[in-house]
Amino acid sequence: MDKRRPKPQKPAAPEKGASGKGRPKLGRPRHGAQKTPEGAVWLYGRHAVAAALANPNRKVKRVLATKNSADWLAQTGIDEKTLSRLEDMKPDAIDRLLHEGAVHQGLAALAEELPRARLKEVCAPAETGAPVLVLDQITDPQNIGALFRSAAAFGAKAVIVQERRTPPLAGALAKAAAGAIEIVPCVQAVNIARALEALKDLGYHCAGLAGEADAYITEFPATPLALVMGAEGAGLRQLVAATCDKLYRIPIAPGVESLNVSNAAAISLYEARRARNG
Amino acid sequence: MDKRRPKPQKPAAPEKGASGKGRPKLGRPRHGAQKTPEGAVWLYGRHAVAAALANPNRKVKRVLATKNSADWLAQTGIDEKTLSRLEDMKPDAIDRLLHEGAVHQGLAALAEELPRARLKEVCAPAETGAPVLVLDQITDPQNIGALFRSAAAFGAKAVIVQERRTPPLAGALAKAAAGAIEIVPCVQAVNIARALEALKDLGYHCAGLAGEADAYITEFPATPLALVMGAEGAGLRQLVAATCDKLYRIPIAPGVESLNVSNAAAISLYEARRARNG
Repeated sequence: MDKRRPKPQKPAAPEKGASGKGRPKLGRPRHGAQKTPEGAVWLYGRHAVAAALANPNRKVKRVLATKNSADWLAQTGIDEKTLSRLEDMKPDAIDRLLHEGAVHQGLAALAEELPRARLKEVCAPAETGAPVLVLDQITDPQNIGALFRSAAAFGAKAVIVQERRTPPLAGALAKAAAGAIEIVPCVQAVNIARALEALKDLGYHCAGLAGEADAYITEFPATPLALVMGAEGAGLRQLVAATCDKLYRIPIAPGVESLNVSNAAAISLYEARRARNG
Repeated sequence: MDKRRPKPQKPAAPEKGASGKGRPKLGRPRHGAQKTPEGAVWLYGRHAVAAALANPNRKVKRVLATKNSADWLAQTGIDEKTLSRLEDMKPDAIDRLLHEGAVHQGLAALAEELPRARLKEVCAPAETGAPVLVLDQITDPQNIGALFRSAAAFGAKAVIVQERRTPPLAGALAKAAAGAIEIVPCVQAVNIARALEALKDLGYHCAGLAGEADAYITEFPATPLALVMGAEGAGLRQLVAATCDKLYRIPIAPGVESLNVSNAAAISLYEARRARNG
């Protein structure tokens, strides 16, 4: 899986709006919660933290674990050096370091953000076997996490999101991704329509998912696919839809408005796999 | 869609464990939050409440709406009588009636629980066109809500859950279902293995989803299907798996443990639709 990880790059420039108004809050900080250092994020949940520890490109500063979770982690075959770094903590002590309602399963890590992935590096060459998932204005952390998890399950080369308005790859998002954010590179594009143009230049067929489309996803061509998902309700923005090569719909029952976006993406990734395998 | 709703039945007997230890909490009640009356549930979110109001089998006691949400509701074509019942409230006044963190979108309803659906009434006759979704020990409210939404999108006859350990069809679950709990009947079975036997008697092929299965979901037979989903991590319980006619897996990338359960169900429902349409 190493080959699908972004190569280490020079440290990312301070991110515009990383703590600004455009970012949905992942929960209110607890009374007395420590401030997260600049450029660092909290990861929690067993699979999310274990995957971060296994990722050579992820710099982990602290790992907090309950006795039970430390035992679980030891069984995953993690190295001795990492195990020796664990800070033994009670669940409520971990609670106090995270946002309210964080379901941490007794394991949390303070880590540096991942190095940024560049579209042309991680998406080239376009391969029929490996789609790219593009998210247009999807902001719900749990949905984005589930989308990463499905992207990993179906061998996607990358997930492309808009830099602005996408929550940090941390917390509830990382937990829902169950480790997938360590495997699938995330490209933060300034402009999604321009990212689609770049994908077309690389040889991708940009397939927009839209309930109003005439074509069905069973008509996906057997070429490298970029699957473009819009937000629930709003759908794809007009310019993004117009930039896609073609729009496709999932056949659903009449009278039902739509699927959850992560379910729609999972079905599309599955169908894309069928399209390439015949 | 009316035909898929359970017929009104006599009021349900008081439910064992409805407020007991076995039910995951949907969030801590706010300081000063009112106690929910016995047999009633809070629904919130625009689609969840609009669907409840449109369901003739749902007795709604109160509807709280902000000015904006009342305008939105009026545009959905809801009747005048319902509109006249709306209680005009500010968002923070609605906040105070719900559990902490409830994303209510300015619309909440206090409603009676739906009448109970009986397996033999809602699942018979077995039809190739309409699968049944069976959930074995799935407890996460958002996952269950998303599962209902996918069940509705693919014309499922019913969702079958275990009576114990399933959270009430309310709150965050109902919001994630986006109205689907008003459309797809929910059967609360005492014992899932026995429910599978009853489905077999009705003519269903019980297809268990399991990562370790030999067969792929592309091999689903073109017969009425009951899709049996286990909890993430734990998977199907042994007796439940043994009671299935056959186990099936979704083809995913090596090294990725599993899909989110609602995504796995969405793909399975989609594939079941393919199997019956050829």
